[in-house]
Parts: sequence; C-alpha cells; structure tokens
Amino acid sequence: MGAIRWVGFDGDDTLWKSEDYYRAAERDFESVLGGYIDLSDRRTLDHLLEVERRNLKVFGYGVKGMTLSMIEAAIELTGERISAADLHRIVEIGRATLAHPVELIDGIRSAVEAIAAEHAVVLITKGDLFHQEDKIARSGLADLFHRIEIVSEKDPSTYARVLRELGTDPDGFVMIGNSLRSDIAPVIELGGWGIHMPYHVTWALENEHGLAGDEARLRAVVGAAELPAALREIVALATAG
Amino acid sequence: MGAIRWVGFDGDDTLWKSEDYYRAAERDFESVLGGYIDLSDRRTLDHLLEVERRNLKVFGYGVKGMTLSMIEAAIELTGERISAADLHRIVEIGRATLAHPVELIDGIRSAVEAIAAEHAVVLITKGDLFHQEDKIARSGLADLFHRIEIVSEKDPSTYARVLRELGTDPDGFVMIGNSLRSDIAPVIELGGWGIHMPYHVTWALENEHGLAGDEARLRAVVGAAELPAALREIVALATAG
Repeated sequence: MGAIRWVGFDGDDTLWKSEDYYRAAERDFESVLGGYIDLSDRRTLDHLLEVERRNLKVFGYGVKGMTLSMIEAAIELTGERISAADLHRIVEIGRATLAHPVELIDGIRSAVEAIAAEHAVVLITKGDLFHQEDKIARSGLADLFHRIEIVSEKDPSTYARVLRELGTDPDGFVMIGNSLRSDIAPVIELGGWGIHMPYHVTWALENEHGLAGDEARLRAVVGAAELPAALREIVALATAG
Repeated sequence: MGAIRWVGFDGDDTLWKSEDYYRAAERDFESVLGGYIDLSDRRTLDHLLEVERRNLKVFGYGVKGMTLSMIEAAIELTGERISAADLHRIVEIGRATLAHPVELIDGIRSAVEAIAAEHAVVLITKGDLFHQEDKIARSGLADLFHRIEIVSEKDPSTYARVLRELGTDPDGFVMIGNSLRSDIAPVIELGGWGIHMPYHVTWALENEHGLAGDEARLRAVVGAAELPAALREIVALATAG
C-alpha cells in the first residue's frame, strides 16, 4: 500500500572506500610492534580489537578513537617497553588514516544519480563528525543528496529519529549499505527495507547482527550498478503490499 | 521590522561547565611532564597549544584530539624520553576528561525554560559528536530544546546552513554563548543578534575574534538569570527596527 519516500545511503564502504585504510593502519601498527613482540599468532590484532571494543563506549567510532586504542594496546602488549618514538609513529598512523584519499566505490555516482532522479536520497553515515564532513566534501557527492545525517551510532533509535525528521514512516524507507549490523538490521527491525551491498572487507565489530537469511524486506547486490534495479523491486513490493 | 523566531544556545560553558575540566586535564598533563622537564616557565602549555593549533585541521575539536595532541607534545617536549607508562597516564587523562560529570551553569535551566516559553530554542554545540551527545543526554536539558545541532566548526557558513534549516533569516535569530569567536561574531557577521555570557575561563584559541566593542546587535550579561531580560531588549529592537 505504501510508497518508498526516502532512500538512505551509508558512507564508508558504500559510497567510498574506508575499511582498506583501517586495514592498512592495522598492518602499520603490527609493523611497529614487530620490534617488540612475536607477531606469528593473531594475538596483536585480537588484543587491539579487544581494546577498541572496551573503548567504544568512551571514544565512539572513528580514527581518533582507533588511534588512542592502538596506543593503549601497544603499551599493554609490550609490557610498557615501547619507546616514545614508536608511540609517535602510531600517532602518525592515525594522522595518515584521517588524511587518506577519498576513492569512490565503482559505479556509485551513477547509481546515486539514477536513484536521486526518482526518490529523495539521504546520506546517513557514522563516525567522527569532523572526519565524515571532510570525506563527504572530498567525495564530490554531497550535492546529490537532499539531506546528510552524521550520527554517532546506527541503532533502531537513531534511525527512528532520522525517519521522524524526514517525515516518513519506516515502510516508506529503504537503506542501502555494506554493513548488515549498522545499515540493514536496525532498519528492518523498525519495519523498513534494506539493500545489502557487501564490501570485500568488513570490520569484525560490524559482523555481529541478528538478521534471518530469508528476510523478505531485504535485497542483496554485488555492485553499485545493480542498485537501481534492486530498488525497483522493493518499490514494486512496497506499492503492492 | 522583523521578529525573533529562533534563539540559539551554545553548550560548553553556556549550559554546562566544560573548560574547567580541560584546565584540570592540562594540570594533570603538566604533572606527568614534571618528571622530565622544568615546569617553571609557560613553555609546556604554550607548546601544547601550538600542537593543538596545528592539529585542529586534522583532528577537529574535542577531547580525543586534545589527548592525541598531548601525547605528541609530551613526546616532543621530552625529546622522546617519556616512558610508555607515563604516556598511558596521558591517555587516562583523556578518558577522565570524557567522563567528567555534567554540571549545569547556575540558573541556566530556568533561563532556558523562560525563553523556550516564548521562542523556539535550538542548542548549537561544537565538538566530538559522541561526547557532545553524551553530555546533552546527561545534562537533562535535551527536552527543553526544539532542535539540537552538533557541528564541527562554528563559522558563518555553518550558522548559515543551520538557519536555512530552521527556516529563519539571520535577523530573526539570537545566539547566546560564552565565546565571542564561536557563538557571537559569526552570527553578527551574518546579520543576526548575540548575547554574550562570559565564563570565568576561556580556551586561548576561543579568544581570537574581530568584534567591535560597541556592536549594536550584541548584549552582554554576567549570569543566566539576566538572559530573559537581555533577550527582551533585543526582541524590542528587532521589532522596532
């Protein structure tokens, strides 16, 4: 019965590449630690992930929180043996990650343009306000969006607030993104629709979700070129429903 | 001729105490460095300010950026002699600053309530999205505001965007805050109004502004209890103008 009124796009790893730069940062982090400890098991990155997880509720998402967690993990893993010069190299890893180039995902500009010609489109992205604004500006995509929302967490209550501000109920909203946990599951939970476009790497903490595999309100695509057709399927279902 | 349609409030040091906690963090930072260098001149905090200033365009405002700048300044000031354990103490200073209690400015709740009874009120605050949201929630003031905007920089273009979203021109907007540079000057520049309520301490980087002392669209108050009367004066001027 309803019609799709708004289509949301995630930012990191949906519009532009992001996780690759975090992975590169992790490799650089390991190479600093290689001077102190044995890197032959997964212990280094496992410990970093554990520190990041416990710091999330104090630091939130983003590169600055990651950098502080790397410093803390390096101090813990080396039993306080790491030198100030090497800790400075970790600050530099953070600075380089913040300044990484913004590379668009293949075909995403045409996909957003095609969808924006028929629907109102909103960018909903999570992380450091300052870094996200910078990436949005450098992406050259800002003008395609009717609204931009930078949020600190992507959970059902955040999406509910955004949808209220957009003036649509969840049944009139489709979210497109690479993370089942952050982009898809909370929107489906509210009664909305999702299109999952996986990226080739996903941060471990984004892999935790409770979605069923046969979710009727979810479509999956392998690349941006398939987005308009997947959306047309959902529009047809939403209108028929 | 116009009427005042929206009244904006700054957050840090206008609604709740903030700078005191940053100052306490600086004292703790100095006490860590006291084990390495002579603190008898201002060199330590001057160098920190210099590092913060050059990092602002990469890290943005907020506690996490301050903490990374403190780590960098400590490494530079000690010629890389500082120990990992003492750098960990600096990470802990950052964590404690993020978790500081939210103490309201005297009389601010009554002032916001009185003003919200006659005008639409918006909270416009700058800094880390995650930390600001946390402070807003803990302040207990969120429900008094018709809108909340967390921004990465308070310059004329940011205010212009927010006012466009509020649907008012600058002549219909009054901003209340403790920082002439961030809260008052950019709003006056756009053609709006300001009420300056100084706080007893101001971060050095917030003291740089180009306002004339006899600005006709600016009122100053010494405490929150005076805000409603100062606003009435501006309303009378705006309506008569």
